[in-house]
Amino acid sequence: MSSINRQVRLAARPSGLPRATDWEVTSEEVPVPGSGEFTVAISHVSADPAMRGWMSDRPSYIPPVEIGAVMRAGAIGVVTASEHPGFAAGDHVYGMFGVQEHALSDGRGVMKIDTSMAAPPTYLGALGMTGLTAYFALLDTGKAKAGDTVVVSGAAGAVGSVAGQIAKIKGCRVIGIAGGPEKCRVVVEEFGFDACIDYRAGNVRRALREHAPGGVDLYFDNVGGEILDDVLTCLARGARVVICGAISQYNETTVRGPANYMMLLVMRASMTGMLIFDYADQYPQALAEMAGWYADGRLVSREQIVHGTVADFPGVLLMLFDGANTGKLVLALDGA
Amino acid sequence: MSSINRQVRLAARPSGLPRATDWEVTSEEVPVPGSGEFTVAISHVSADPAMRGWMSDRPSYIPPVEIGAVMRAGAIGVVTASEHPGFAAGDHVYGMFGVQEHALSDGRGVMKIDTSMAAPPTYLGALGMTGLTAYFALLDTGKAKAGDTVVVSGAAGAVGSVAGQIAKIKGCRVIGIAGGPEKCRVVVEEFGFDACIDYRAGNVRRALREHAPGGVDLYFDNVGGEILDDVLTCLARGARVVICGAISQYNETTVRGPANYMMLLVMRASMTGMLIFDYADQYPQALAEMAGWYADGRLVSREQIVHGTVADFPGVLLMLFDGANTGKLVLALDGA
Repeated sequence: MSSINRQVRLAARPSGLPRATDWEVTSEEVPVPGSGEFTVAISHVSADPAMRGWMSDRPSYIPPVEIGAVMRAGAIGVVTASEHPGFAAGDHVYGMFGVQEHALSDGRGVMKIDTSMAAPPTYLGALGMTGLTAYFALLDTGKAKAGDTVVVSGAAGAVGSVAGQIAKIKGCRVIGIAGGPEKCRVVVEEFGFDACIDYRAGNVRRALREHAPGGVDLYFDNVGGEILDDVLTCLARGARVVICGAISQYNETTVRGPANYMMLLVMRASMTGMLIFDYADQYPQALAEMAGWYADGRLVSREQIVHGTVADFPGVLLMLFDGANTGKLVLALDGA
Repeated sequence: MSSINRQVRLAARPSGLPRATDWEVTSEEVPVPGSGEFTVAISHVSADPAMRGWMSDRPSYIPPVEIGAVMRAGAIGVVTASEHPGFAAGDHVYGMFGVQEHALSDGRGVMKIDTSMAAPPTYLGALGMTGLTAYFALLDTGKAKAGDTVVVSGAAGAVGSVAGQIAKIKGCRVIGIAGGPEKCRVVVEEFGFDACIDYRAGNVRRALREHAPGGVDLYFDNVGGEILDDVLTCLARGARVVICGAISQYNETTVRGPANYMMLLVMRASMTGMLIFDYADQYPQALAEMAGWYADGRLVSREQIVHGTVADFPGVLLMLFDGANTGKLVLALDGA
């Protein structure tokens, strides 16, 4: 094991789309755990749309990453040395370890993972924060119930693909929205949605009316922008719109608000935001339920794994914003 | 009594702000009630922001007023002749009688009013649909509870002024937003709000942070536009935004959507639309409660009454859109 820990630190706050120069790669000695601490050799780093928000100093649900700090990221790794009673060398763990090769942890927010049930990247996908976000946004915030017509945007993406599958398991009719015929094929054939609308092919609103003639009971929004406005015109009475993300807007300097928001009044509908951190005390039961679906083959986790070094992180993150990924995007660190 | 019934009929669908030429005044014989019908001599016509929406043929919660049809309006009047078992000549009634001097009704949606308790215009204000809208939007949709910090836009207007008063009665801290120092004075001194922000005086966002340092638990929105965006930046965690109207946008050809809607995610907040018609079966109990507050002097109904003829209706309606009214705007028909 190298004694050098390479790290990706935030160098500048981007305006618009981030550039590679917004981070810098630095090196330091691999830390040595003190009492109550352990070190982790990181094997897989999560790439998430929310990271774009963490780079900005606008008011948000957590403080931004400080300039000069290691870029915040969920990651998977193996405990290499431990002075912590709850973790031992060799344990596979998930935590907010950051974009670096080695992390020092006191165990807060760290979960052990069972690599005999699923490969490590799956714990960044369907059996990780991604899956938990889909689970609680759909079932708690969105109150999905059997018979609902559910529309999911970003349907080929990490959260959307899991949300649609859970909706199917719960007896909903599920229509995805994704970009391009290949993604739409995956959404229907691999993730089992009832239909998928290719927003690049044209009139989303007309396609929605065709696929959801009785209106949309629940819209799970990951994208914002024009697609949100289109879905707002197709709501059923009493519909719920769950705001889980707005990837189309994260790099815009001027956000496009939903001009059709008065359809909430017309349809007596609601639009509600959710944050996964509020559900921390319910993670275990949700993960147990999802692990059961995964073991039964009812829940598919698809990860798109890019092999590289921490220096490749900026390029991997940008894949999220040009629609290049399907499923959960993961940077696998070579040699880990 | 004249045997001629003058009526205001929709002549054109406006683009932007309506003009007087969007209606025409016509005359016909006063109708004679058939079996199960009665006629009403109308004394007071309600002027409501929602009327602007009824003139457009965009999808909405009720069909638009047809070109050539009598303009839809709530109104108060006296039964003049009746072949209906439930109504007798001399009864004071409220109904969707339209902008005309005489209406023929089969009794559907008509309520008798008690003019010994309050003057007829009050039944278009706090003790009518206006008050009911405030009541259910605040208490049912908004779930106002003691201790909440409540912000009401259009606070000097018909619905806003009642909403704020009910919030005070329920033990909330209530901050109004209105246009100009005189309206703000009325909001605080007559309607009893704890404070009122004059949006014409400048920085609404800064004023909100000052008056609601702990954040806004419930925002009762009647205006939309920039003020909605300002309030979204000041929400407390778990806040509820009730969409009751969007008067700033009704005459815009391009609606401004709330660009700060992602604060719903940051604050785990919701935005919900409401329509009073859904509560029809609960009107009696709500009106009884509001009548009690009115009798006790805890609920003030302020009406701004313009005397004229049905031909004055267009000018009265336009007063709503240039901020000329305080309280409930009513057209009182001369000679009625």
